[in-house]
Amino acid sequence: MSVRAGIVVTGTEVLTGRVADRNGPFLAERLRELGVDQAHTIVVGDRPSDVADALRWLADAGVRLIVTSGGLGPTEDDLTAQVVADFQGRPMALDEPLEGRIWAILEGLRVRWPDLDEEAIRRSNRKQALVPDGATVLEPVGTAPGLIVPPAAGRSGPVVVVLPGPPRELQPMWATAVDTAPFRAAVAGATVYRQHTLRLFGIPESEIAETLVRARDAGVDLDALEITTCLRRGEVEVVTRFEPPQQAIYDAFAAVVRDRHAGTLFSDDGSSVDEQVAALLRGDGARAGRTIATAESCTGGLLAGRLTDLPGSSDYVRGGLVVYSDEAKVALAGVDPALIERVGAVSVEVAEALADGAIAALDADVGVGITGIAGPGGGTPDKPVGTVCFSVAARGGGRLTRRVVLPGGRFDVRDRSTTVAMHLVRRLLQGESDGDRAEP
Amino acid sequence: MSVRAGIVVTGTEVLTGRVADRNGPFLAERLRELGVDQAHTIVVGDRPSDVADALRWLADAGVRLIVTSGGLGPTEDDLTAQVVADFQGRPMALDEPLEGRIWAILEGLRVRWPDLDEEAIRRSNRKQALVPDGATVLEPVGTAPGLIVPPAAGRSGPVVVVLPGPPRELQPMWATAVDTAPFRAAVAGATVYRQHTLRLFGIPESEIAETLVRARDAGVDLDALEITTCLRRGEVEVVTRFEPPQQAIYDAFAAVVRDRHAGTLFSDDGSSVDEQVAALLRGDGARAGRTIATAESCTGGLLAGRLTDLPGSSDYVRGGLVVYSDEAKVALAGVDPALIERVGAVSVEVAEALADGAIAALDADVGVGITGIAGPGGGTPDKPVGTVCFSVAARGGGRLTRRVVLPGGRFDVRDRSTTVAMHLVRRLLQGESDGDRAEP
Repeated sequence: MSVRAGIVVTGTEVLTGRVADRNGPFLAERLRELGVDQAHTIVVGDRPSDVADALRWLADAGVRLIVTSGGLGPTEDDLTAQVVADFQGRPMALDEPLEGRIWAILEGLRVRWPDLDEEAIRRSNRKQALVPDGATVLEPVGTAPGLIVPPAAGRSGPVVVVLPGPPRELQPMWATAVDTAPFRAAVAGATVYRQHTLRLFGIPESEIAETLVRARDAGVDLDALEITTCLRRGEVEVVTRFEPPQQAIYDAFAAVVRDRHAGTLFSDDGSSVDEQVAALLRGDGARAGRTIATAESCTGGLLAGRLTDLPGSSDYVRGGLVVYSDEAKVALAGVDPALIERVGAVSVEVAEALADGAIAALDADVGVGITGIAGPGGGTPDKPVGTVCFSVAARGGGRLTRRVVLPGGRFDVRDRSTTVAMHLVRRLLQGESDGDRAEP
Repeated sequence: MSVRAGIVVTGTEVLTGRVADRNGPFLAERLRELGVDQAHTIVVGDRPSDVADALRWLADAGVRLIVTSGGLGPTEDDLTAQVVADFQGRPMALDEPLEGRIWAILEGLRVRWPDLDEEAIRRSNRKQALVPDGATVLEPVGTAPGLIVPPAAGRSGPVVVVLPGPPRELQPMWATAVDTAPFRAAVAGATVYRQHTLRLFGIPESEIAETLVRARDAGVDLDALEITTCLRRGEVEVVTRFEPPQQAIYDAFAAVVRDRHAGTLFSDDGSSVDEQVAALLRGDGARAGRTIATAESCTGGLLAGRLTDLPGSSDYVRGGLVVYSDEAKVALAGVDPALIERVGAVSVEVAEALADGAIAALDADVGVGITGIAGPGGGTPDKPVGTVCFSVAARGGGRLTRRVVLPGGRFDVRDRSTTVAMHLVRRLLQGESDGDRAEP
């Protein structure tokens, strides 16, 4: 049986793009894990009538659960609790014990901001302790409580889960919400789907379209699967969702992909290239761990930043050099200034020298060199904007060097460059080296 | 007069958060510049019925314009053109000249991917050249054309602008779309609003709530202004939108903010701290330019990455050191190992040594040192997770050093740290130095 839900993300700052929404995606992922079919995320500004319209539309569409994020703060434009109370036909009431608990949190804040006006804090305290009568209160993670608000007695419609906007408050509060009785009642009976992800690097998305045609021709009943493909930071991702009895059909489909894309399929267990690189660097019983260092020009530190995104990366990341200027390439990475003079800073030769320089400067096992033209300026007919040279080298031998022209603007070229570099690191650590195979 | 519009972002990969949506925010911003009131962004998956529901809801809400993004690719789940054609009552028809123009683009792609199957490419070519009869075609930027689709003759309702999902295709195509006659007709008569942004750093959002109360008490007619406040990467942003005749009311409100928050208001002209730092480093007629270098531990290169986000940053960014390991702090930044032994790697003393080391290693005018505990592991009672020490130093004198405890998880701590560092750089370049003022 299908249980449907909708998400309403509130906040003019999100609607207008001043703040990127992280809550819609997080909630969508969690709902799917619970087997809930989440068909729409609506982003609305801070106008009460727009929030109310979104709730009403989702209710009319027959959802059993609505999750809202945002609009629980202390300022006048934060009015989600009131709008949801009206929607469910419940009056607002001051929850005095809650007011006291929030006050205790605010007292802690006052230590950090000693000059603040006590009266202002008291006022926002009281506002945040006003909750719809009969709602289940979710204890504040920051200063705002969350709410689970069923329709008032005698009314029907979806249960509304009201959560705060900051992701670091919303995420732990979600865990609390799913354990409450009204939440469990709202999602009772949901079918739990299976989901598998295949990731490929080095082919255009249209190739997957052709693979789907071939799988169908080979008799795979694709209509039993919900397959979506997308480009994500330069990779092609194929996500398939299906009900458990269709597992054999999925296996047949995955076999077609594996067969047709053996050279570019790098993940069939949901792992990202970042996680694969981390695991390869850590090593295991069979393979010793290795350390890594970077020397980046056009990416300016973004690859080092990406390598250190994962907790525990200090076990294998030695560090990096951001060699944005030619002087820095020479002084820090030991690149021969005559080489730069002869072939230019954006060249496979300098990328190789940077990789070697990273190994030497940081005493690492693996070095990555990146040099390119991120744009918008600096392109030439020979080296247009988007030209990026990469080299990944292992101390003691083994190297992969590539020159590519990446599409897009400055942001895209820099971001995509970190992806290309991660894949070259992965392939080197998996044993590939130039000479083993032709250029891709 | 108010002209309303809605945005429909399609794609299961966006709905489920595998890809972050950059199009909704971009389009919202552009619509607002045109004076269009954009009240809702709806994110839907690739199910045709969900896309159709979203279009219908927005039409029922009375919008004059709907902009869609995504669903124009070559795979079977890309069906926005068909859904919009059905919605507007127009049959799909093959546009043969368009098919030829797309084929010319695909021929170029084939050079890059020589092994691809020509038949597959022909098929996706034909799919992308099928357009609703009577639609205005927007020339492809990638391989997908955009569309402007008015209701069929005899029908009423909004004009639908259909754009591709990749931001680097959508953004230039938007510029083409707004110049077409059907687009101009749809937004004719929109009121152009003014919008001003104030940015503050170093206060909680609740303080702005109190400022609004005081402005009202002082007789400022806030109801004439549309004020939204939000937290964004650790800064408080106050965005005010108003019709031009209300300028004097806005000026009075801004004066109250300036007066009450003189120490924390850093931008009243829309500029970001990144842009301010870039301008300060570039210098001007009155002030010489300066170069900058970084030495980062917990942020792992993210500050260098942020400093080099802006085009032309090679004029003032010398480079950086990512000193994730203690050995790297010693070898690259010249930190005394005895100092690390004595006070620990996460300390104001080591932050200062890192800033000095960045200046020395990269021959820069300004150095930034960052060392901290991003978590989730590594915290102690004395130095809990989130503890980050910063030092910004100028060659020849001047320094700002701070130790803070930042809230949130690993991502938040690292991201917020780059914001704190940017503000310290700004303040140092504006002439502040420890000793001039007390710790904030």
